[in-house]
Amino acid sequence: MPLPEPTELLARRLAVARGDAEADLVIRGGRVLSVFTREWLEGDVAIVDGTIAGLGAYEAAETVDATGRFVVPGFIDAHLHLESSKLLVDEFARLVLRFGTTAVVADPHEIANVLGTDGVHWLIDACDALPLRVYFMASSCVPASGFESPWRTLTIGDLEGLLHRHRVLGLAEMMNFPGVVRGAPAELAKLALARHVDGHAPGVRGRELNAYAAAGIRSDHEASTIEEGRERLRAGLWLLIREASAARNLRALLPLALEYGPARIAFCTDDREPEHIADDGHVNAIVRDAVALGLPAEDALVMATHNPALYHRLDRLGAIAPGYRADVLVLPDLERFVPDLVLLAGAPVGEIPHVAVPDWVTHSMHLDAVAPRDFAVPWTGGRARVIGLIPGEIVTASLEEELPAEGGVAVADTTRDLAKIAVLERHLGTGRIGLGFVRGFGIRRGAFGATFAHDAHNVIVVGVDDEAMAIVVERLRALGGGIVVADGERVRAELPLPVAGLLSDRPLHDVLAASREVNAAVVGLGVACPSPLQVLAFLALSVIPSLKITDHGLLDVDRGELVSLAAEPRVTAEPGAGRTSPAPVTAQR
Amino acid sequence: MPLPEPTELLARRLAVARGDAEADLVIRGGRVLSVFTREWLEGDVAIVDGTIAGLGAYEAAETVDATGRFVVPGFIDAHLHLESSKLLVDEFARLVLRFGTTAVVADPHEIANVLGTDGVHWLIDACDALPLRVYFMASSCVPASGFESPWRTLTIGDLEGLLHRHRVLGLAEMMNFPGVVRGAPAELAKLALARHVDGHAPGVRGRELNAYAAAGIRSDHEASTIEEGRERLRAGLWLLIREASAARNLRALLPLALEYGPARIAFCTDDREPEHIADDGHVNAIVRDAVALGLPAEDALVMATHNPALYHRLDRLGAIAPGYRADVLVLPDLERFVPDLVLLAGAPVGEIPHVAVPDWVTHSMHLDAVAPRDFAVPWTGGRARVIGLIPGEIVTASLEEELPAEGGVAVADTTRDLAKIAVLERHLGTGRIGLGFVRGFGIRRGAFGATFAHDAHNVIVVGVDDEAMAIVVERLRALGGGIVVADGERVRAELPLPVAGLLSDRPLHDVLAASREVNAAVVGLGVACPSPLQVLAFLALSVIPSLKITDHGLLDVDRGELVSLAAEPRVTAEPGAGRTSPAPVTAQR
Repeated sequence: MPLPEPTELLARRLAVARGDAEADLVIRGGRVLSVFTREWLEGDVAIVDGTIAGLGAYEAAETVDATGRFVVPGFIDAHLHLESSKLLVDEFARLVLRFGTTAVVADPHEIANVLGTDGVHWLIDACDALPLRVYFMASSCVPASGFESPWRTLTIGDLEGLLHRHRVLGLAEMMNFPGVVRGAPAELAKLALARHVDGHAPGVRGRELNAYAAAGIRSDHEASTIEEGRERLRAGLWLLIREASAARNLRALLPLALEYGPARIAFCTDDREPEHIADDGHVNAIVRDAVALGLPAEDALVMATHNPALYHRLDRLGAIAPGYRADVLVLPDLERFVPDLVLLAGAPVGEIPHVAVPDWVTHSMHLDAVAPRDFAVPWTGGRARVIGLIPGEIVTASLEEELPAEGGVAVADTTRDLAKIAVLERHLGTGRIGLGFVRGFGIRRGAFGATFAHDAHNVIVVGVDDEAMAIVVERLRALGGGIVVADGERVRAELPLPVAGLLSDRPLHDVLAASREVNAAVVGLGVACPSPLQVLAFLALSVIPSLKITDHGLLDVDRGELVSLAAEPRVTAEPGAGRTSPAPVTAQR
Repeated sequence: MPLPEPTELLARRLAVARGDAEADLVIRGGRVLSVFTREWLEGDVAIVDGTIAGLGAYEAAETVDATGRFVVPGFIDAHLHLESSKLLVDEFARLVLRFGTTAVVADPHEIANVLGTDGVHWLIDACDALPLRVYFMASSCVPASGFESPWRTLTIGDLEGLLHRHRVLGLAEMMNFPGVVRGAPAELAKLALARHVDGHAPGVRGRELNAYAAAGIRSDHEASTIEEGRERLRAGLWLLIREASAARNLRALLPLALEYGPARIAFCTDDREPEHIADDGHVNAIVRDAVALGLPAEDALVMATHNPALYHRLDRLGAIAPGYRADVLVLPDLERFVPDLVLLAGAPVGEIPHVAVPDWVTHSMHLDAVAPRDFAVPWTGGRARVIGLIPGEIVTASLEEELPAEGGVAVADTTRDLAKIAVLERHLGTGRIGLGFVRGFGIRRGAFGATFAHDAHNVIVVGVDDEAMAIVVERLRALGGGIVVADGERVRAELPLPVAGLLSDRPLHDVLAASREVNAAVVGLGVACPSPLQVLAFLALSVIPSLKITDHGLLDVDRGELVSLAAEPRVTAEPGAGRTSPAPVTAQR
């Protein structure tokens, strides 16, 4: 429980509310949204000490004229991963505040995989000085599964410690939904830590969904069909409608808000790329699109302000009413939802201080030098398992293809769009490399790779020749992480992400410029699939079907087991358990 | 924060939810209310270990056939004073469970005035064994004002201690609304103790209401007009619609639910007499009346189940959904709302154990013997202040009347309906008596009195002769509290309330029989005003306008000062402060 506020502040707020003292600021002449009655009210909004004192007839030293405009609470993002923006939090705040996002609830599981709780503590501390309110959920699934290799596993004790930090609201998305549903003791032990737990239950329906809800999980942001959404609402789960850069669920789920009203529905962005936010917007863009799809503006605004606050029990956020924090937007229209003015605790956004980057967060690359031979895959020919990309999806197909052998090793075959893919463990210097093949990028020469690869964020690299792959990895090592494109022996483009290999330390403009160069260079390699770097980033995520790759090798997600490159026979053990041969293809330097 | 539940329980619930284990009980064939989507669902409700596992296709050892009936969550009373029922909590539970009330949130401020925190701790403990869920709010205003004399004042430390007890949710109604609005330090110090604070703001509007809400108070149950209700919703206060025995606000406020929907509105009974509950019902009767007034049954049910749970943050109550406590009603219709079956944690209401009444709670009468002369009011004639009853209201008028004197004392005048009224301090044996006159009862002979007199529950007695008044008080002393009617030298009827002078220790049937006799006997004295004992009980409440009486004498509530019987001049001090003469009429034995 937060400390009670000093009574002097409260006494002054009451004096302003009564009209016995002057407010700091009055917003006059606008139409003011009541999130409680979903109507537009007329009156002055009086603000003192960063808090709303009342709506009515008030005087103040300073007045904002909102005549003809709309006064609404600041937008609140119910669930996101800050790291997806690839920006440091100060630069992220500068970007999203422009669009009226005044509070976010973040799951820091990207940085938690790379830097453990140390990284999360740093991130929480780094947000202290921001005018943007950044709340956190303790990352419940680090690693996402036993097939991934983070720096350290977050233990029950780690989670408990994070839950004690200020601005940590509960337990982040319980991605191990099969474990929750089957009552795995490790997952139940996590659930016992918190009363507020976010969900993540893609495709879970019927009795399994009942089990997931009965475990005490309070929401889901993975529903993608109207029937999934309807089931979640009926089961008592809050429905967080996600519009990420890859996964976009607004169009499918919005009819539920039209049918049932806005109660128990909120918006979230989950994973938005920097280009996406810069070009399109943030939570405001979801409101805009919802209204364009036919939702009354009042309902859409409630789902972007009051409802996320209610869901996360942020009692003093999300409304323009006495006692609420004065995070207020003045909107010129109810179509674009881009604010003319953003007030944070009653003040316009001023200079946002630069976040200090301590040296230790820039040393997350713990792998030895690699050479082309490290990517060699011993092979005598035959049918191989191949990861098959599916355009516009992050799920993959599990293909089987004849794989050519040259001099005892398997090689890429650009005529059949077969490229080599590798994941290199980078946290503990184990030298472990998982090797496989992928179809669908259309890559015809060179290689590209990244240290941003869900969720363990080891190095992932795709290429048609081992020399280029080695150059990519060596350059990533030199940069301390990022995204690199190489052709022949030359690095063609790069986006350095020195902070944990996840975040840039540069301004938005530089990040966008480098990102465009990197994307152009990838296209220059012949790559034809859309958003190739986003697609690449999900190929190591062990909890999304069907065939994936981690530093342990190829993984059949549907069966939950590592598999060999050779299409037969199977391997059935998790890493660490007794293995049956032939093992998945891994290299050990 | 409550202890996490044992993981074995959770594991079994998940197994039942998945269909891998049999439920304890299944409710089959009914139409099941979703409080989240406000629709009726079809499917089995599976219950295990007192908790709902899921809605769907389930098997169980035991089945309840609800074909053709309606399955809804148990009703939750958002705010009441248990003591108004005059029943011990076990008998109260037997009574209201029949009507489907499965949880209540109680402000124990009646017993707190008489027995202090000791009494509240006893009441909390006494509720432990009940199947009815009784939650408490820590009584914030004991005494209601400095003009009343409870046993002990509840200090900040007392409130803090109560807030640490289990099932205590927050701070009870902040009745000193003028103090809150003007920012009185003592009230602000109380507000700093809790994040969940009930309100009580009769007639407060506009900027004063903004101040009351800005203080962090979350609700009001005193709104009696639609405009008051609308203002409260817009100010972010929850609107608790009260249907008590005296104050009934449903008809006036229900249009708000029709206009805005049921969000942020809940029902409460506040003060219901035992006859009222027995004859008419409890929360179910409010639902019934709301539906009869045109509210959709689904909305009325949400306001009686999910909404009070949401308001009080009772996360696991108020819905039929996975993980919620199986407090479930089976209703035969959506008109009467009297359940066929009431399940508490999945089990029918069984034998409810009798609450033990410790000896010490029956010794609350600390006043010496009284004689007729103690009621003498020295008087030489002239105009006097007289409390004027207003039919159907608990506010009074402040009248001025010529008062006859006989032998140097003021006397009642039945020809002009002027009766004597006295309040005798009974907690500390101070011997303090406040004396005055009242018009409107129509009493023609004898006297009647009670120890149930808001909020300090001193002895209050009305009569036309001093002998009968003394007999009433002496009989109340002998009974250890209650209600007594006397005519001449004889006691005509009585309702003993030996527990703190507030509660009977008898079964409902006996209480109702004695209550009927008492009411008939009062009518036998010539009393013509409706509900005379309820009216009497509010005449000592120092926070309801206009002219009231406490053991300190006549009180002008509007001006907040004690006043003399003689119509002029005024006295301006609170008790304890320096007094100016002439003092209000009090006697000291």
